[in-house]
Amino acid sequence: MSSASDAWFTEAFQASGSSIGFRVTGKLHEEQSPFQKLEIWQTTDWGNLMVIDGAIMLTSRDNFLYHEMMSHPALFTHSNPKKVVVIGGGDCGTLREVLRHKEVEHAVQVEIDERVTRLAEQYFPELCEANGDARAELIFGDGIQYMKDAPAESVDVVIVDSTDPVGPAEGLFNEAFYASCLKALRPGGLLVQQSESPLVHIALIKSMRQAMRNVGFAALRTLPFPQPCYPTGWWSCTMARKGGDLTGFRERGAASKPFPTRYYNVDIHRAAMVQPEFMREALGD
Amino acid sequence: MSSASDAWFTEAFQASGSSIGFRVTGKLHEEQSPFQKLEIWQTTDWGNLMVIDGAIMLTSRDNFLYHEMMSHPALFTHSNPKKVVVIGGGDCGTLREVLRHKEVEHAVQVEIDERVTRLAEQYFPELCEANGDARAELIFGDGIQYMKDAPAESVDVVIVDSTDPVGPAEGLFNEAFYASCLKALRPGGLLVQQSESPLVHIALIKSMRQAMRNVGFAALRTLPFPQPCYPTGWWSCTMARKGGDLTGFRERGAASKPFPTRYYNVDIHRAAMVQPEFMREALGD
Repeated sequence: MSSASDAWFTEAFQASGSSIGFRVTGKLHEEQSPFQKLEIWQTTDWGNLMVIDGAIMLTSRDNFLYHEMMSHPALFTHSNPKKVVVIGGGDCGTLREVLRHKEVEHAVQVEIDERVTRLAEQYFPELCEANGDARAELIFGDGIQYMKDAPAESVDVVIVDSTDPVGPAEGLFNEAFYASCLKALRPGGLLVQQSESPLVHIALIKSMRQAMRNVGFAALRTLPFPQPCYPTGWWSCTMARKGGDLTGFRERGAASKPFPTRYYNVDIHRAAMVQPEFMREALGD
Repeated sequence: MSSASDAWFTEAFQASGSSIGFRVTGKLHEEQSPFQKLEIWQTTDWGNLMVIDGAIMLTSRDNFLYHEMMSHPALFTHSNPKKVVVIGGGDCGTLREVLRHKEVEHAVQVEIDERVTRLAEQYFPELCEANGDARAELIFGDGIQYMKDAPAESVDVVIVDSTDPVGPAEGLFNEAFYASCLKALRPGGLLVQQSESPLVHIALIKSMRQAMRNVGFAALRTLPFPQPCYPTGWWSCTMARKGGDLTGFRERGAASKPFPTRYYNVDIHRAAMVQPEFMREALGD
């Protein structure tokens, strides 16, 4: 148990009746941006911790799980991902993983809150190391509007790396947004979105998938992965494809990838496509 | 964030600098057994919660992950598991899963603290529903001594379902105990042991595996799985085999299993054998 002198940052998840905390040595920064309250804490064992409106966003130590799984399965599923859009993702960790793929010619990150990226540059510099890549474009603006305005069939992969479906991110979880993504994708293009915890948000996952289907995405798959700093420690992303299916991927490319990963590999890709029994029953995959 | 009226049971994990909590409505029971302090809490969203010496042991809602993964991969790897020994496992959840296999003729649970089982019968009755099975034998005693005294080549699968390697369970994580298990196993027999979190206990996992190798176990595999109530929400078990290897399992048996599961299925079995990149690098699998 904790000793009296310990300090902890703890997030209580009302919807799941569970909480996760990290031992901290102090608060490094706090501000109210035009969009949300941002905090950076220093932890004893997890590096720096970013908190938005009281919700834990990432730690230095465990963000690799999320960022690798939000990017590599989709990019190795697409046959030739040249143009990638990241909606949200202001910490730049997903953008960094995307730019590891040499096929990518242009990667745009559309984050509504510039302050998230400025704080990431300061407190998570390793996640921002690809921001200066000539192929990277950082836009600070509304991702919903960006996808609405995107030219038809101009994008290969859209990655929705957002906060929970409340507040600024709510409009990223509905048919209007998915229809914009479908239109903007080239044939065979992929949408991948963070889709919360399979254990406590299966109803949300079902409704996201139904909305994706309703606008015309045919093939769908929800990939679970561990993520200690999010509710239940187990998270997921959902992939949807414009035409084609999701049963195969560029296995040789993934097996011989010229960049390092810490979670993802070709076997993990296959394993992440597998549905635990309760997900199979709930989602019909 | 939590409202002022909420009550939470929170366990702070000193070694990992992280914590996990559940919202509770009250404490249903507390006692000091001859071995440890036992508590049962009622939660708002996770059913009942058992706590031993301040450490969260299980909740009604998420124990299926652990119990299925501690039993089915090993039992479907063995060609004909007739005799199974569970060391620890006093909540009887692993025993229940073991007895779902019709090949099992005799399953012995050796729990040091009878009070754990008595409390499970009262507060987790669903986990104890197989305790009256004619093939089940419940022994309350020292699992280390039991395995030391077990006749040579008398057991097909040993499942070590213990608390962390401190206190009463410490002696379950060393060469002397593994040597007893190896001797007691028939050729092709399996040892499976809970092996903590891959993210924060990789050094422990390595030392367990080294000790298993040192006594003569040849094939080894560490299987990760989600487990929200344990540190990081991601846990593992390690399988070791007396002769033979761990590359195959009874896939047809697993695919046509005549009993329900909620996490385990034939695809999950294959997926759990896969090592994330950092584990592959650390463990050499």
